[in-house]
Amino acid sequence: MRMDVLTLFPEMFEGVFRSSILGKAQEKGLVSLRTLNFRQFSGNKHSTVDDYPYGGGGGMVLQAEPIFGAVESLTEGLESKPRVILMCPQGETFTQRKAEELASEQHLIFVCGHYEGYDERIREHLVTDELSIGDYVLTGGELPAMVVIDSVARLLPGVLGNESSAVTDSFSTGLLEYPHYTRPASFRGWEVPEVLISGHHGNIGLWRRQQSLLRTLRRRPELLKQAELTVKELKWLKEEHGYEPDDVSAK
Amino acid sequence: MRMDVLTLFPEMFEGVFRSSILGKAQEKGLVSLRTLNFRQFSGNKHSTVDDYPYGGGGGMVLQAEPIFGAVESLTEGLESKPRVILMCPQGETFTQRKAEELASEQHLIFVCGHYEGYDERIREHLVTDELSIGDYVLTGGELPAMVVIDSVARLLPGVLGNESSAVTDSFSTGLLEYPHYTRPASFRGWEVPEVLISGHHGNIGLWRRQQSLLRTLRRRPELLKQAELTVKELKWLKEEHGYEPDDVSAK
Repeated sequence: MRMDVLTLFPEMFEGVFRSSILGKAQEKGLVSLRTLNFRQFSGNKHSTVDDYPYGGGGGMVLQAEPIFGAVESLTEGLESKPRVILMCPQGETFTQRKAEELASEQHLIFVCGHYEGYDERIREHLVTDELSIGDYVLTGGELPAMVVIDSVARLLPGVLGNESSAVTDSFSTGLLEYPHYTRPASFRGWEVPEVLISGHHGNIGLWRRQQSLLRTLRRRPELLKQAELTVKELKWLKEEHGYEPDDVSAK
Repeated sequence: MRMDVLTLFPEMFEGVFRSSILGKAQEKGLVSLRTLNFRQFSGNKHSTVDDYPYGGGGGMVLQAEPIFGAVESLTEGLESKPRVILMCPQGETFTQRKAEELASEQHLIFVCGHYEGYDERIREHLVTDELSIGDYVLTGGELPAMVVIDSVARLLPGVLGNESSAVTDSFSTGLLEYPHYTRPASFRGWEVPEVLISGHHGNIGLWRRQQSLLRTLRRRPELLKQAELTVKELKWLKEEHGYEPDDVSAK
């Protein structure tokens, strides 16, 4: 899989692309990650890529020309057009489901603005997706692009080694993870729950499932609605822990 | 403000901390950003920081010892204890409101795990906050820490220069931003909306507000519930655009 990032700050990506899973995935040839500074497509001798907004107001707006030029330099002659993803707060909220969808593509192009708006014609005529990673304001689209790239890359076959792929994660079961403990059994007087050192696999499994349900109930009750619960579990949550499926603010 | 990051991959932060707004904020002395590799606090000669989970199962678990040791090396002798923030999928979902809350602190410590679980005693006895940046799975807490640091740092007085602070952003008004246009007025035959070059400020203001309302209605209708709308705007959304306040799936 190939992922290209259009950015005015390619140096921001160096450490992230070289380290850990993303670094290894590239070494293994499983993913190709590149940055392209779209300033070189400005089409003017001062290399400016932004200008004042029509209609007045503060802030600068990224021009259409350099973004179209940069994307087209990457897609020229390609038979199938890659998806072009604009990172912006107005975009669709990124989720694990979207990561899975993007992981089935062969080529993705990310467009990162930086504390500026985008000329609307970029949205209307060039991009295929607009993504936001959450409801908070950042100085640019670079960190959001890294987040999406990381979450997509780790889903590609062969990218995660055995050391990590076995970890059950919070969004694969629809529930938050149960608590983990490792050595020492006693740390500063705080002990590991007895059940975990009992060796009784049935009890351990039950404890973990219940902890997972309780943590989800207390922290993210809205997730329980979509989780697959047994009748017995639902009854236990309702009777012992006051869960009311219609009340998403249940604590 | 000081922000420390505990991580096994300090090199991931270099490009991000040196570039753009974060780089300038440090040069101006407005914020101090440091990384600390907690492997040096492993307390064993092999420098291991993880071990198998009690109770069995796949994946490794980060031990309490190195995280406690690293945090304490940073807080020893301090009069007021900084908040210690664990980046994890089970945490509270990060929002702009949380960024504003954290921006009022003097010192924050971020703990980043990497494709592993945390020993529960870290959660119970060391951290003050657990944060998740969204409902997707990443290979570690490093990118989430960068996201939180970026969103907090840009709120600190003096960090954003004039070139960017004036940009109205999607989460300050509670609505998504209206479309922006800049030169050229005609790009490949696609024109800037006439109203924006009319010079009529009243009409421009109205057009922008309506575009902002419509974009929010189409993309994130749930945000409209919290937005401050006039009676006239609410009527216009209902009668002209089918907005039904009780139906969050309105398109």
